[in-house]
Order: sequence, then C-alpha cells, then structure tokens
Amino acid sequence: MDKSAVLADWIKPNNMPITSSEQFAPSNIALCKYWGKRDKQLNLPMNASLSVSLGHLGTHTRLVPIDYSADEIWLNSDRLLPSSAFCQRISAFLDLFRKPGTCSFRVTTRNSIPTAAGLASSASGFAALAKAVNESFQLELNTEQLSVLARLGSGSACRSVFKGFVEWQMGQREDGLDSHGIQLNAAWPGLCVGLVKVDASVKATDSRSGMQRTVETAHLYQSWPVQAAHDIVLLKEAIAEKDFAKLGQTAEHNALSMHATMIASWPPLVYWQPESLATMQRIWKLRKDGLAVYFTMDAGPNLKLLFEQADLDAVMRYFPDMEVIQPFGHG
Amino acid sequence: MDKSAVLADWIKPNNMPITSSEQFAPSNIALCKYWGKRDKQLNLPMNASLSVSLGHLGTHTRLVPIDYSADEIWLNSDRLLPSSAFCQRISAFLDLFRKPGTCSFRVTTRNSIPTAAGLASSASGFAALAKAVNESFQLELNTEQLSVLARLGSGSACRSVFKGFVEWQMGQREDGLDSHGIQLNAAWPGLCVGLVKVDASVKATDSRSGMQRTVETAHLYQSWPVQAAHDIVLLKEAIAEKDFAKLGQTAEHNALSMHATMIASWPPLVYWQPESLATMQRIWKLRKDGLAVYFTMDAGPNLKLLFEQADLDAVMRYFPDMEVIQPFGHG
Repeated sequence: MDKSAVLADWIKPNNMPITSSEQFAPSNIALCKYWGKRDKQLNLPMNASLSVSLGHLGTHTRLVPIDYSADEIWLNSDRLLPSSAFCQRISAFLDLFRKPGTCSFRVTTRNSIPTAAGLASSASGFAALAKAVNESFQLELNTEQLSVLARLGSGSACRSVFKGFVEWQMGQREDGLDSHGIQLNAAWPGLCVGLVKVDASVKATDSRSGMQRTVETAHLYQSWPVQAAHDIVLLKEAIAEKDFAKLGQTAEHNALSMHATMIASWPPLVYWQPESLATMQRIWKLRKDGLAVYFTMDAGPNLKLLFEQADLDAVMRYFPDMEVIQPFGHG
Repeated sequence: MDKSAVLADWIKPNNMPITSSEQFAPSNIALCKYWGKRDKQLNLPMNASLSVSLGHLGTHTRLVPIDYSADEIWLNSDRLLPSSAFCQRISAFLDLFRKPGTCSFRVTTRNSIPTAAGLASSASGFAALAKAVNESFQLELNTEQLSVLARLGSGSACRSVFKGFVEWQMGQREDGLDSHGIQLNAAWPGLCVGLVKVDASVKATDSRSGMQRTVETAHLYQSWPVQAAHDIVLLKEAIAEKDFAKLGQTAEHNALSMHATMIASWPPLVYWQPESLATMQRIWKLRKDGLAVYFTMDAGPNLKLLFEQADLDAVMRYFPDMEVIQPFGHG
C-alpha cells in the first residue's frame, strides 16, 4: 500500500493550502526502541516503542505557500540545494497533500537542539511539518491522525507529536491507521536526561538502512520484538510506580539489546566508538558505587543518561559537559 | 544425573592407578562458539560448536600416584594451595576415578601457551588430564570417550582431545554420552590464527557464570542455538570448499553474535574493552582496503585474527606484536 492510498480520506478535494503555519514539535528519546520495519513504505514497526519527549528541545517549522515552481527549504539559516536528500524528502512529503504542480512552499526549519547533543532531528522535524501541513491545508486532523501523518515522514516522528511519555502502538492494520503514538497519562517531575556526546571518527550507517540490515541478516533479531513487548510492560509499570531503578534498568537493557541485534548483523553494525564503551564502563562503575544512573543509546555513538534530580549534582561532577533536560520540569 | 553415574560403566572395579602418565593436549579456538548449557552438571551445551586446535600450543600434564593423603598440584613451576579453586576442580575430577581416600596424585601442569596470548587453559588442561587419567587407570577409552571425560572437567575441553578442525556434537542423550568432539577429515595448510592481546582494566566475569547469566536474562539468547546450527553448516562448507572469505565471515559473525547475546544480558555482560573495539575498527578498515582478515573473540577482551599465509606479512605490519599459529603448518 502506498502513502497516498492511506491518506485518501483525509485530503481535501481542492488540495490547496489556505494559510501559512508555524509549529513546534519536541525531540524524543526512546526508552523502548523502535528497531525494524514490517512495512518500509509506511514506516510500520515490528514492535511497539515508548519514549519521553524533550520539552523545549526540538524543531520549529514554518510553512509558507509561495508562487515559485519549486519548494524553497531552509535549515537554520541556510538555504538547502533542492537536490539534497533532506529537500527531496520534505518535498516528497508535501506532495502527499498537494495536486502536482499547483503550489510550492517555503519551509523554514529551525532546530533548538544544541548542536553538541547528538540528537537526530528527523523525528521532531517531521512531527512539526505534519502539524504545519494540517493547519496550512486545514485538514482538521486530531492528534492521533497527526501522529500517523508524521510517521509517514519518519517512523519515530509519530512519537514527537506528543509531550511527556508516549507509546507508539505498533497496530495491526495493513494501512497503518492504528499505528501511531498515544500519550501516557503520567508525569515524572525531576526526571533527568543527560546528553553525552561522543565524537565519531567513522561515518555511521543511517538508521533506515541499519534497521533493514538487522532485520535481514541478524538471526538474533527474531527475539527482539518479544523483548520489546516485554520491556513496554515493565516501563509502564515503572512509570506508574515511579520506580526509577526499574525504569533505568529496563531502558538500558532495551538499548543494549537493540545494539546487540545490530552487532549480530552482517556486515557488523557497530555504532559504538571506543569512547562510548569507556563511558558505559564509567556509568557501570558509578552505579556499582551507589549512584542511580543509567543510559540509553540510539543508532549512533552518543549516550543519553537517565537519573533523578536528587542526583543531578553528583552526575554533573562526572560529566561536566553534559546537557541536561528535565522533560517534566523540576521535582 | 551426576558425573559418577555417567561414568559407572567405564571405571575399573579396583579403581587404582597403575602407572604415571604424561600427556599433551592443544588449546583450541572456536569458529562457532559454545555458549550456554542445557545441563550445568554435565557441561552439556545448548548448541554444537566447531573449533580448530592450535598445534603445539597447549598443556602438558604429568599425573603421578603418590603416597600422601592429599593431591599435590603444580602449575608451571609453582605449587598451588590445595584450597585454591584450580586445585579443588582438579581433585574433584580425579575423585570421579578413585575410591575415596585410597590414593593421591602429584599433578604437574605446564602451559606452552605464551602468557601474552590471552588464551584460556582449562580446555587444553582438562583434555590433557583426561588422557593422563585414561592411561594411569588403564581405562582403555577411545578418543570419543576421552572427549566425554574431558567435557566433564570443562565443556570446551572435549574439543581439545583432537587435532585440526573439531566439531562438538551437542548430542541428545540425558547422560551426554553422545555429546563429544569428532575430528573433521580436513586440513588447511597456511591457515593462520593471530593472537592479539588487549589489556583488561576490569576483572571479567568467568565464562561459566557469564553463559548462565546470558541464558537466564538475555531474551535474544533464544535465537542463538538456531544461528549456531546454521553457522556450523556454513563453516563445514567453507572448510570443504577452502573458501576463506566464507570461513572468516562466518566465524566473525558467530563471535559477534555470541557477544551480542552477552551484551543483551542483565546486568550487561560486556567483555570488550575500548581497545578491543578500536582493534575491530582497524580490522574492518583493513578489510575494506582489500585485506582478507577476520577475527573471533571469546569471553574476554582479546581478538584472535584469522587470515591466510599469503597475507601474513601484510597483517604483521599492522599487528607487529601478534603471536601467529599455523594449526596445519605452512601452505
């Protein structure tokens, strides 16, 4: 099934943008990871995932209909070449909503993610763009429908449509209309996410082709969806019980297991750098010494630490350059 | 079932040693790893494995009946304390063959494994001891029975009873009498194994408890026996076809997948050091540049490189401190 067929009922007959729109969507960090697609076209996942959105860190996107024959796409303060992969992906997304050749857009994207943070911006970027398209074309979609839209741009973007803790329900339908984020009715004031950047000397494989290689070549991947389903249950329990050790352990175990499926791929897919491993060892040592700090990692060499506000000063002593976010504010 | 019950038919009625014996058994390096037990008592594996024995590198063991009331155990030129774990393990093994209190032994063990090599000696040690017990008690066991004996001392020792390529057939029987090594009728002159030692700053978890933790806590372990069975087939094909790329790829993929099951355990079991990862990255770079060099790793931070004699000089340029073994002699 292609994306246009999925959206057929949601697109207005005239297919023309009515207004400009400016929208924001937060970055999100998965505590149970999305890794592997059951449908590459629609970005439908092999497993449910669960994330926390990062408050004010994310992407501001402004969408303005223009008269030119081609889209004009800006990232921070640079105009990008229309032939770039980034522009092609955005224009292809806009094509889902407009009649061919009828209108173009100026898309201005500004990331409030610190450059040093090592966070992917496609999740917040496509979530903000989905919201902007909804307003500009006056599609009047609800948030779960917006989450479906965002997913068609980039899988994990469906979680960035929401604040707080978000579960991406994998869904069962072939058209994926039941595969979208839902916000958990829970907050955790004082929960801290620390971004520890590790320099990569080698260009990493993008996560799209990385997950494909894993699904196709890692025998161990067969057991991944079972683990993810199990971890989702544990994480929801941890959130309901405010059991930080359970939250941290489950998130770290889940992230390491995802990396394990990559390491078991062929050719090997190892996103870790020696410095990533040294940082993990420091965290295990700190934990052994009694500090409740855990980590998660995505398809890259950086670590994202998880701890509570009571330990903020202690953790900062060991990671003084770390950027800290409190997604639910102070505890 | 306990070890004595398994051995009941093989033990002579008088249970007394007849002669002294001196035996040698080689170290072995698994190309398809043994990881996980289906029976902890008898060291019965969850999967078949396949190794190559390392020629003259291994353990010389001399077993001499003595009149004292306790065993006297020497390692290289040091007498070990009877209370040490090493002595206890050897005495417990000897207890399987003697009537309690009837005789003691002087066991003199000398490893010809270079200290820098980072190879475990329990495989060659128990294989040599099993051979010595066989001669000393005149049990007259055949090599496959000796392999069963050696397994009761240490799982992978059952492969060290043989030279060359050895398959450890996992077997089906509850008493494990069908779970032993068999020698493959194949040689590969010019095949090289290079031992690259990485210093470990942290004491590693021993492989016995490591594999238990993996089996009990790593969801991904569920898929490991399937992969191992698949890899055994590929390795046998590679050996039959003298297809070095297939041999190297399968061995590296298998080792990384085993490490992946460890990484997916909880608490995480990461035997890699930052330097291990840096060495892997060097090897992947060399391979990208056209050099046919692969690696395998066991439950520790060291790498064992696999390459052919034609590339020996090229590989030595990058790893000048490496110890090189040619298990089948020159090509």
